[in-house]
Amino acid sequence: MGEFELIRHYFAAASCAQVGEGVALGIGDDCALLDLPAGEQLAVSTDTLVSGVHFPDSADPFLLGQRALGVSVSDLAAMGATPIGFTLALTLPTAEPTWLQAFAAGLDQMARQCALSLIGGDTTRGPLSLTLTVFGRVPRGLALTRTGAQIGDLLCVGGDLGAAAGALPLVLGQRQAAAEIAEPLLARYWSPQPQLALGQALRGKATAALDISDGLLADCGHIAAASGVALMVEQARLPLSAALLALLGEDAARHCALSGGDDYRLAFTLPAEHLAELQAAGWSLHVIGRAEAGHGVQLLDHRGQCITPPARGYQHFGNPSD
Amino acid sequence: MGEFELIRHYFAAASCAQVGEGVALGIGDDCALLDLPAGEQLAVSTDTLVSGVHFPDSADPFLLGQRALGVSVSDLAAMGATPIGFTLALTLPTAEPTWLQAFAAGLDQMARQCALSLIGGDTTRGPLSLTLTVFGRVPRGLALTRTGAQIGDLLCVGGDLGAAAGALPLVLGQRQAAAEIAEPLLARYWSPQPQLALGQALRGKATAALDISDGLLADCGHIAAASGVALMVEQARLPLSAALLALLGEDAARHCALSGGDDYRLAFTLPAEHLAELQAAGWSLHVIGRAEAGHGVQLLDHRGQCITPPARGYQHFGNPSD
Repeated sequence: MGEFELIRHYFAAASCAQVGEGVALGIGDDCALLDLPAGEQLAVSTDTLVSGVHFPDSADPFLLGQRALGVSVSDLAAMGATPIGFTLALTLPTAEPTWLQAFAAGLDQMARQCALSLIGGDTTRGPLSLTLTVFGRVPRGLALTRTGAQIGDLLCVGGDLGAAAGALPLVLGQRQAAAEIAEPLLARYWSPQPQLALGQALRGKATAALDISDGLLADCGHIAAASGVALMVEQARLPLSAALLALLGEDAARHCALSGGDDYRLAFTLPAEHLAELQAAGWSLHVIGRAEAGHGVQLLDHRGQCITPPARGYQHFGNPSD
Repeated sequence: MGEFELIRHYFAAASCAQVGEGVALGIGDDCALLDLPAGEQLAVSTDTLVSGVHFPDSADPFLLGQRALGVSVSDLAAMGATPIGFTLALTLPTAEPTWLQAFAAGLDQMARQCALSLIGGDTTRGPLSLTLTVFGRVPRGLALTRTGAQIGDLLCVGGDLGAAAGALPLVLGQRQAAAEIAEPLLARYWSPQPQLALGQALRGKATAALDISDGLLADCGHIAAASGVALMVEQARLPLSAALLALLGEDAARHCALSGGDDYRLAFTLPAEHLAELQAAGWSLHVIGRAEAGHGVQLLDHRGQCITPPARGYQHFGNPSD
């Protein structure tokens, strides 16, 4: 058995490769087979992460596995889908057992957290890169797309913003911070938490949604363009993480929240009548603006005047959509 | 719009990206959405091709696109599935318009031939590699797996073998041949023809199946191991292509057929009672052996004596499972 064949057996034995709900046939044949309940649709998304482009060459393999899967599953959350499984195409220069064990453990941890199974993949020799394809299910007609925002809808996000972008100088070893500041920021970078339950709760309520990967303003631009509306973002209402404020101060923290990317929070438009209902159900939603007639994204100051958003400025690794 | 964003728009406009049957939502949102008819299962397979490992750096981009998709769709054929769509994760050092146009055209040609749509993907910067994930549908319980071969079944292949392996010295420019020999061999390498209709015809009849990518003997070994039988291959019954015989002579041609790989013909086990029925329906099947009690794969000479198969010897690029 060759070195790469050993790796395949190694991954096939991982707990995330145990056949889960909706998986009729997992790893080991020409294809995996998935069952889909009647009345549901399959949601599919593919992301590639390249070493030196999307993560540092020296990235901790456990954290890399965790992050790679979290980032991909976030696309399922953005559609309101329930995860089923994923495939992993792993390209490696060499099969290094310590690295692989840690990588698989990180992947496994995120897979268990999000309740999805490794259903297949491919292992090849070459420069380090990962392509994950994730599969979920969503009731027919209830998937959250980017196209339905209506004039008058509230613009909301599912949690505080900017922490992952603020963590980048720490990730790259360019900056130090006290543990109580560094740890929550690094956790947001390395262990993105796909907002799966929130996405599912928004089915039939939110009119448009996506997960923030490119930065709030850029991603709101995708909703605005797809829906044919303008989105007004009120700068004063941006939720900023306490650790980020402590590290950078308010101006730079706001910059990270607007343009930094890698948040993997949901951003969505919501008819106002659903807000109280969702809040009563315990969802901590942040209303940051509204949809109006027009196009594009406008940033508003505390008097409601348009201001020019800051250019995307912090050093960053590209996110998987680059 | 950045260079890579332009490419995404370019692929999104390709004819294979038009929303096809079974595709509820194609390119452009967080996920694609697929519909699956009641009573069917989804078949999924992922393959990565790395430049310099799985294809020459200088590969013609049209042929590369065609081959990459053909190789992936062959896994759907091996399950007896009907193609629905595919995702493409394309990593490129630079966005070179001429290369991309030709690559997309090759992909498009194979997509139209196999009736499947590009439903999503990712374009990233890095060393050239492609990861394709293909999706198909198959009636529940009728997928062709590797596990059902029974003692007494015939071992069959869906067409002649060895041509793609025999073409490699031509692909690599290490050998010349007259056009009437070179062309059919190069076509078998660059334009693998997934045996989709045959796979579908074998549903409910073949007891085990796969597509030959690693070489006949190696792949028969997968069926033997998964099914718990021995497979006897009669060397004299191997179907060899005329062009391959003309190029290499019988011994070397047989070597390519047994060990060369890249054939993408189906190999399958079939209860004898189904053979006449399939042949009457017009399928050109080649019976090359049978399943017996035991394990592993045995090569038999014309007297039925076991002989040692030749070592895998021809220079080759790894196939996508390496």
